[in-house]
Amino acid sequence: CVVSSCFRAGEEEQQAQSKKALKKQQKEAEKAAKKAEKQAKLVSDFAKDRYGICPMVQSQQKLDRPLVRVQDLTPEKAEQQIWVRARIHTSRAKGKQCFLVLRHQQFTVQALLAVGDRASKQMVKFAANLTKESIIDVEAVVKKVEQKIESCSQQDVELHVERIFVISQSEARLPLQLEDAVRPEGEGDEVRKVDLIIINLHRNLNTTTSQAIFRLQSGICQLFRDTLINKGFVEIQTPKIISAASEGGANVFTVSYFKTSAYLAQSPQLYKQMCICADFDKVFCVGPVFRAEDSNTHRHLTEFVGLDIEMAFNYHYHEVMDSITDTMVQIFKGLCDRFQTEIQTVNKQYPSEPFKFLEPTLRLEYKEAVAMLKAAGVEMGDEEDLSTPNEKLLGRLVKEKYDTDFYVLDKYPLAVRPFYTMPDPNNPKYSNSYDMFMRGEEILSGAQRIHDAQLLTERAMHHSIDLEKIKAYIDSFRYGAPPHAGGGIGLERVTMLYLGLHNVRQTSMFPRDPKRLTP
Amino acid sequence: CVVSSCFRAGEEEQQAQSKKALKKQQKEAEKAAKKAEKQAKLVSDFAKDRYGICPMVQSQQKLDRPLVRVQDLTPEKAEQQIWVRARIHTSRAKGKQCFLVLRHQQFTVQALLAVGDRASKQMVKFAANLTKESIIDVEAVVKKVEQKIESCSQQDVELHVERIFVISQSEARLPLQLEDAVRPEGEGDEVRKVDLIIINLHRNLNTTTSQAIFRLQSGICQLFRDTLINKGFVEIQTPKIISAASEGGANVFTVSYFKTSAYLAQSPQLYKQMCICADFDKVFCVGPVFRAEDSNTHRHLTEFVGLDIEMAFNYHYHEVMDSITDTMVQIFKGLCDRFQTEIQTVNKQYPSEPFKFLEPTLRLEYKEAVAMLKAAGVEMGDEEDLSTPNEKLLGRLVKEKYDTDFYVLDKYPLAVRPFYTMPDPNNPKYSNSYDMFMRGEEILSGAQRIHDAQLLTERAMHHSIDLEKIKAYIDSFRYGAPPHAGGGIGLERVTMLYLGLHNVRQTSMFPRDPKRLTP
Repeated sequence: CVVSSCFRAGEEEQQAQSKKALKKQQKEAEKAAKKAEKQAKLVSDFAKDRYGICPMVQSQQKLDRPLVRVQDLTPEKAEQQIWVRARIHTSRAKGKQCFLVLRHQQFTVQALLAVGDRASKQMVKFAANLTKESIIDVEAVVKKVEQKIESCSQQDVELHVERIFVISQSEARLPLQLEDAVRPEGEGDEVRKVDLIIINLHRNLNTTTSQAIFRLQSGICQLFRDTLINKGFVEIQTPKIISAASEGGANVFTVSYFKTSAYLAQSPQLYKQMCICADFDKVFCVGPVFRAEDSNTHRHLTEFVGLDIEMAFNYHYHEVMDSITDTMVQIFKGLCDRFQTEIQTVNKQYPSEPFKFLEPTLRLEYKEAVAMLKAAGVEMGDEEDLSTPNEKLLGRLVKEKYDTDFYVLDKYPLAVRPFYTMPDPNNPKYSNSYDMFMRGEEILSGAQRIHDAQLLTERAMHHSIDLEKIKAYIDSFRYGAPPHAGGGIGLERVTMLYLGLHNVRQTSMFPRDPKRLTP
Repeated sequence: CVVSSCFRAGEEEQQAQSKKALKKQQKEAEKAAKKAEKQAKLVSDFAKDRYGICPMVQSQQKLDRPLVRVQDLTPEKAEQQIWVRARIHTSRAKGKQCFLVLRHQQFTVQALLAVGDRASKQMVKFAANLTKESIIDVEAVVKKVEQKIESCSQQDVELHVERIFVISQSEARLPLQLEDAVRPEGEGDEVRKVDLIIINLHRNLNTTTSQAIFRLQSGICQLFRDTLINKGFVEIQTPKIISAASEGGANVFTVSYFKTSAYLAQSPQLYKQMCICADFDKVFCVGPVFRAEDSNTHRHLTEFVGLDIEMAFNYHYHEVMDSITDTMVQIFKGLCDRFQTEIQTVNKQYPSEPFKFLEPTLRLEYKEAVAMLKAAGVEMGDEEDLSTPNEKLLGRLVKEKYDTDFYVLDKYPLAVRPFYTMPDPNNPKYSNSYDMFMRGEEILSGAQRIHDAQLLTERAMHHSIDLEKIKAYIDSFRYGAPPHAGGGIGLERVTMLYLGLHNVRQTSMFPRDPKRLTP
């Protein structure tokens, strides 16, 4: 029987199975066998045990057959007989041969099946008719190739297939052809490609580009946390359902909470600060942040992942600012060291300049930035906030002058920052606050926070904030509070800007914006 | 002037400051000086530069004065003159002396200030009158003590204070006395103590016990992730705002989403599975999980932190189960190795038996568990679900027989598991599913998931689930899906049960339950 052979191939021992299960498996096997017969169209087939459709993997047995990953198929494995599990990326029949490209994650390899000693005509036809994206197990010999296979990630070897079994069949009509979704920018219809990326995101997660983007994103989180834990930070978990909307209640999502209503947290800031007041000294958290802002831009999401830091300092908030910039530098270095494969995979589709940074990080004062913009012809007031185009322009000016894609802008005008920002002790028009930029776009906003209840009250009143609504916040500082500063980073923005991408939806697996709630 | 001297003490150089700032600082200084004068009640005081209230730390200067942490005050530092920043935990005046206990995080040290060469009568009085919880900088000489100081974490040394300056003053009336909140269980009024823990949680975060609990919790997250990353897992970020309530829509919070409404995710399962279908192979996520369940028990929260795992396997779901139990074992080992201080700090207030586990993890089949319970006199059906008391009893029976606080229960009856659970191929009444238990309470629920759209449809219909509502979920499996399994762990429960605590609100910094939305 074709099917029951697919797990025997390789002479592995079968575990003892109950009679019941055997019967069931036989039944399934018979059903599948009929199908396979039909496909082969001939009953007499010398290779009939070498291909077919496996019964659904239901943990029937513990098989001792190692599977080699596509990424590990290198010339060192030449002439070895191995098993590989992968998807059919493309398949092309040509006379008595079938050329397959097998894919797993961001890696692809060419596979060849040819009529001969080990494969019958029927077997080659079976392989040629398999639907794209189906997951198969193949037994094959690894062969070195003379000419590099440019279209695959594994360019030096190909597989000569001797057995082929289907583990999970894909339906014939795919929602999109994945090989179309990774064409370099500029090739083909641009609009359709953006559609693929944004709308058809579910299937798109399986492109080599997406695999690389989200592996790198996982790396950012890991580097962020490892660096901070090495610096003595503690990870905290802050609630997302909160009873009162901080800062007045604009841009906040409302939740029904049993018989009352609540809000989704716009930031973990209050909770981070409470931990500082409770002497945790250095805390960070990684979690969702919600903004009910009707902004439909390339860089806004209604739900994104915040990498948040808060830290008590001894004498000066630059102790904190330096910790944050050093953390960013460690992230950039770690990505560069450990994720070159991913960076190159993304670059194939979305070419961009390598990300540049200085050590120590370039720090400019807001005043200097305004002067640079004015010198470049921009008309703006000294204490006016930076518009998005001016931020971008400033990024280009800084890059030209200092050759860095990452810098800090320190000492923002007090008027453009939230009420809890500590004023500059040397100039009351400015504040102890900073933003950080990557490729001319803001990725972090931070400041020394006011840790004195009286000054906090004064500043809230100056901003016409209802004191009743922020009473709990202000009260946090009445029982001894260490001086502290912090900031919040947007994970999707960092991923986008590090890779030189142009839409934050490409770096969110399941993006949420005012018009998108699925998948 | 008393105050401006507080940052000069130690002869550090002052940075150049603008005239304006100096004026402002002088004004503040004068104000504070008047206050200090009043407190000292005498103008002529030879020690007047050695104590006082500092102006608010506004990052006026970058001071080069290292601060030693309380936890680092050991006999190796004996006779050294050092600066420490800490809170006043307790203070007691006795004749010409003032005994302070200084606290930072979970560490405390005794400090002594006595009238003499270095301190005036006024200075001692000033110290004695400082409010508890105020944050102070003291310059002191570390002295070895002959008799261990049992009431402090630093038992072998005390500080002889020579200068004392207030960095942040606490208001006189504290919402609770922190030293009362860490009394061992059994001492004092139990009801009041639970109140402290649960209601007055904000201030309570600062107890030595809470410091230890949440540092250990941070360790659990870190060990969980590090172990999985070493095993080749990728961290993913899944959305919390979702368009459709999975599994029918019970126990789900509703969110207003612009002109429509949405839901808060009850689990990341669908998204984890989509990543598996997209060939990420091994994924995990750490994030909030929301349950609109009106359960007011010691172990239910409406928002908790889920540690979620999903993994494709080759042949048998035990490959995944073994990965998860090994991850738990690595967590237990890591906690035992790296967090002994924290475990002991918690044990002082909440004594419990050390947590025991086996390697490899004990695995029992559901059938065996039912047999054990029946042998112990419980009346229950073979395919009946375990009640909470029976789970607890089973935990005790397992502990007696196998001497472990951690085990897996495998092969649950199919009827008591969700529709997407893979049936056991050998017995259709059972399933490829498992729960994991710590000290007799469930901490993880997991299973092999059905990866075949047709079988999934059949099972959903069997459970009378509206197919329209789960169409997107079922469609995920139509384009080739690897066999996979996974599970979700509750962080707060793991922390509670590892430490032998009795209420999940003790291991959530800001617990949310049907009656609690603040702080």
